[in-house]
Amino acid sequence: MKHLLGVEDLTRADIEELLDLADSFLEVTQRDIAKVPALRGRTVATMFFEDSTRTKLSFETAAKRLSADTLSFSVSTSSVKKGESLKDTAQTVEAMGADAIVVRHSSSGAPHRVAGWVNASVVNAGDGWHGHPTQALLDAFTLRRHRGPSLDGLRVLIAGDVKHSRVARSDVHVLTTLGAQVTVCGPPTLLPGATEGWPVTITHDLDDALCDTDVVYLLRIQRERQDAALFPTLREYTARWGLTDERAARLKPDVLVMHPGPMNRGVEISSAVADSPRSLILEQVSNGVAVRMGVLFKLLAGDAGAGGGSRAAGAGTATGAAGTRDVTGQGASR
Amino acid sequence: MKHLLGVEDLTRADIEELLDLADSFLEVTQRDIAKVPALRGRTVATMFFEDSTRTKLSFETAAKRLSADTLSFSVSTSSVKKGESLKDTAQTVEAMGADAIVVRHSSSGAPHRVAGWVNASVVNAGDGWHGHPTQALLDAFTLRRHRGPSLDGLRVLIAGDVKHSRVARSDVHVLTTLGAQVTVCGPPTLLPGATEGWPVTITHDLDDALCDTDVVYLLRIQRERQDAALFPTLREYTARWGLTDERAARLKPDVLVMHPGPMNRGVEISSAVADSPRSLILEQVSNGVAVRMGVLFKLLAGDAGAGGGSRAAGAGTATGAAGTRDVTGQGASR
Amino acid sequence: MKHLLGVEDLTRADIEELLDLADSFLEVTQRDIAKVPALRGRTVATMFFEDSTRTKLSFETAAKRLSADTLSFSVSTSSVKKGESLKDTAQTVEAMGADAIVVRHSSSGAPHRVAGWVNASVVNAGDGWHGHPTQALLDAFTLRRHRGPSLDGLRVLIAGDVKHSRVARSDVHVLTTLGAQVTVCGPPTLLPGATEGWPVTITHDLDDALCDTDVVYLLRIQRERQDAALFPTLREYTARWGLTDERAARLKPDVLVMHPGPMNRGVEISSAVADSPRSLILEQVSNGVAVRMGVLFKLLAGDAGAGGGSRAAGAGTATGAAGTRDVTGQGASR
Repeated sequence: MKHLLGVEDLTRADIEELLDLADSFLEVTQRDIAKVPALRGRTVATMFFEDSTRTKLSFETAAKRLSADTLSFSVSTSSVKKGESLKDTAQTVEAMGADAIVVRHSSSGAPHRVAGWVNASVVNAGDGWHGHPTQALLDAFTLRRHRGPSLDGLRVLIAGDVKHSRVARSDVHVLTTLGAQVTVCGPPTLLPGATEGWPVTITHDLDDALCDTDVVYLLRIQRERQDAALFPTLREYTARWGLTDERAARLKPDVLVMHPGPMNRGVEISSAVADSPRSLILEQVSNGVAVRMGVLFKLLAGDAGAGGGSRAAGAGTATGAAGTRDVTGQGASR
Repeated sequence: MKHLLGVEDLTRADIEELLDLADSFLEVTQRDIAKVPALRGRTVATMFFEDSTRTKLSFETAAKRLSADTLSFSVSTSSVKKGESLKDTAQTVEAMGADAIVVRHSSSGAPHRVAGWVNASVVNAGDGWHGHPTQALLDAFTLRRHRGPSLDGLRVLIAGDVKHSRVARSDVHVLTTLGAQVTVCGPPTLLPGATEGWPVTITHDLDDALCDTDVVYLLRIQRERQDAALFPTLREYTARWGLTDERAARLKPDVLVMHPGPMNRGVEISSAVADSPRSLILEQVSNGVAVRMGVLFKLLAGDAGAGGGSRAAGAGTATGAAGTRDVTGQGASR
Repeated sequence: MKHLLGVEDLTRADIEELLDLADSFLEVTQRDIAKVPALRGRTVATMFFEDSTRTKLSFETAAKRLSADTLSFSVSTSSVKKGESLKDTAQTVEAMGADAIVVRHSSSGAPHRVAGWVNASVVNAGDGWHGHPTQALLDAFTLRRHRGPSLDGLRVLIAGDVKHSRVARSDVHVLTTLGAQVTVCGPPTLLPGATEGWPVTITHDLDDALCDTDVVYLLRIQRERQDAALFPTLREYTARWGLTDERAARLKPDVLVMHPGPMNRGVEISSAVADSPRSLILEQVSNGVAVRMGVLFKLLAGDAGAGGGSRAAGAGTATGAAGTRDVTGQGASR
């Protein structure tokens, strides 16, 4: 496994291996000294072409807990403003020594293109409407900890602007691959056409769908969609597709609530529901760090010299054989 | 001691303990290898809702010298722009693994609110007009090194826009708690009403006040105050309340000059005075790092599992008992 | 060697010593664990008054690979916006504990002025049209690896906006000091006057110059120069002074192509040439990290207590003698 570009490339066994790795790293993050030397001397670069403090910090925290160095390529202050191409930017970041490049971009497929230009490992941290693989992995990981070990037959309802959501696309794939049954719900204008061939049930009636689910996953609604007249008003959206206090009161006690954040409290989710015991929203954030540690470890600790082109030449003289890198421990020298 | 939210909560013994800790850490910062492993594996997050490179860098430098990791939540590129609430932001930062959250906010009381929402330790790095505890501690620390060990009876004159100054509010409390006698001086429009019940002498005559003090502490004057017609012009402000070369020439040789920075050279303080031997201004900056190391150490090295909610679950499996964390040394394993 | 302010200060022996150091560090960057403890406990600050992600990240990566801490003073969010002077900013950064300050500024001479105000080492990372010493060193380093060990008699053609280029100024000095023969080529409006007394051949005819060179070094053309009417249009610039595919086809096979980045593909250099085997452009980026490691090591690992004023006082109590700092190794304790 060289890159993590999309969940389409992952088999059930691949996903389960990554979630098992994340289990180990979750334990690490709960230690008093929440750090392992697994990736010491490796460099993880973030290259974000869209604002996203959460995802960026989550990856950087994951990298630091693996003792990797981080290198943050900030578009707002960079040569990209001078018109430098994505290709040149990516190759420059790699030439500086990045072993992995974490890419967020508004264009679907941008991380795939980057992967074609560099020898470093590329992680897709969100590309257009296409996908957000680590979000889907952390969502599956969170559900597995609560309803696992198997998700077979687990009923998950994803509600909101499914059409424009890379989170929904990736979640549908990962959760169904793991055996869950996914229903998507929202206004017709915000759902994918049946022709897209998703392995999901489609409905427009939230109240109906809520009767029959184990998990409710709310998506963030973007104000831009209202401007584009895809729904009338935020108030009306909430009335029909928001998880309000009234709707939550009718849920069975063990139904879980999730959201990728940041939330619009009072719009797609009521504030009381977000803070209720059934909400896994903050746990998703914590688990995100462990899952990203697993992904970075999987991509970078594999074998000597695989990490990046700029280091290939000298890999033979490496002082520490990559074979000594291990997940949890003190095996590698400090 | 879980949080540092305001100096009002600190007794004389609390303050002295923190300053003693800072003494130890000042020695660390002067070593050739200016670093100790005291907080290795801990994460210190900064969450600044107002620009302040100085204070943020000082806290981050302090954290790094304790071998903690840092996580910088930058408001300008964050979900806060998308309308995320302070509560969600703080809880998200904690969920990523922050053991301490350093908060600056334009609203008085914001750090207290954050402390109510998270299990992590919260440090107030300046909130509205309310307070700036670490600034007051570093000011006291600096004075103690020059006029200590006791500040009893030390006469300190704070001059300028006292009314809108969180630095002044915190300094008055800390310095008087340590036994100093504080006088505040400035235009009537920029002084607190007598009714506020501060334990200080109030005067409007700088020349008079300068005859009778051991320390002159200048506050930065904000141009906005002139726009609000709180004083006529900067030139007139300087003429009446600035520490000009002429006024400095009349000071006794051992009178010390302080300023929290950044200075308006030529306005509240003349350039020559700022650079003169009696000026402690750069020493304040250096001492700030040591004082913040002391504060972070006090809050985070206390006992296992106290650092943050997200790590409480696994604290029992911690590899290094927090009892082995010590201030200056090689005790904890690297 | 306390500072690196300009290449004018460097003898051939100085340059060769720095390039030899960079050779050692290039080997380090190619290891599996691309990191040495050489500067552990030291702090390298960047103070950039012009946007430059590349150079800033290169210095920060270099510092991290030497195990130094970094402190990034970002002008856009700093007190500089409140009118703080360059002097106060630099002294504040030093007082926080910076052992080296890496300065980029739009004014020629700014790093020299900073060096007069602080005890820390100062590195010029580009000042106005004056110089960019580490760029010139990495260019020389890159050429030495391909055409070395000696550059005596090597013919280098620098083409483009030489007049406004600090890269060109520094490169001319370093390359000619090492024995290379430099020709500069460009429109008359973008070349220095003969009266400047550069040790170079000046020509306006690129096709002619290309017949007779071992290396073509293209400079980035700034759109502002067109606005200032220094050349008619970008298309015409490319036609006369760009390294197009046609021109590249006429070059001898072993002629090398360089560019400091970021490139304007299709303007001063064709995209195919930039990606061709003769292009050293990405290697320049990689070598830049090694060269900057060498410079930081040379300035900071010299002798105990020399690193910065704020640590001078306590240097006698340093736990690790600076004499134990070494380039490549495990000599210093971790």
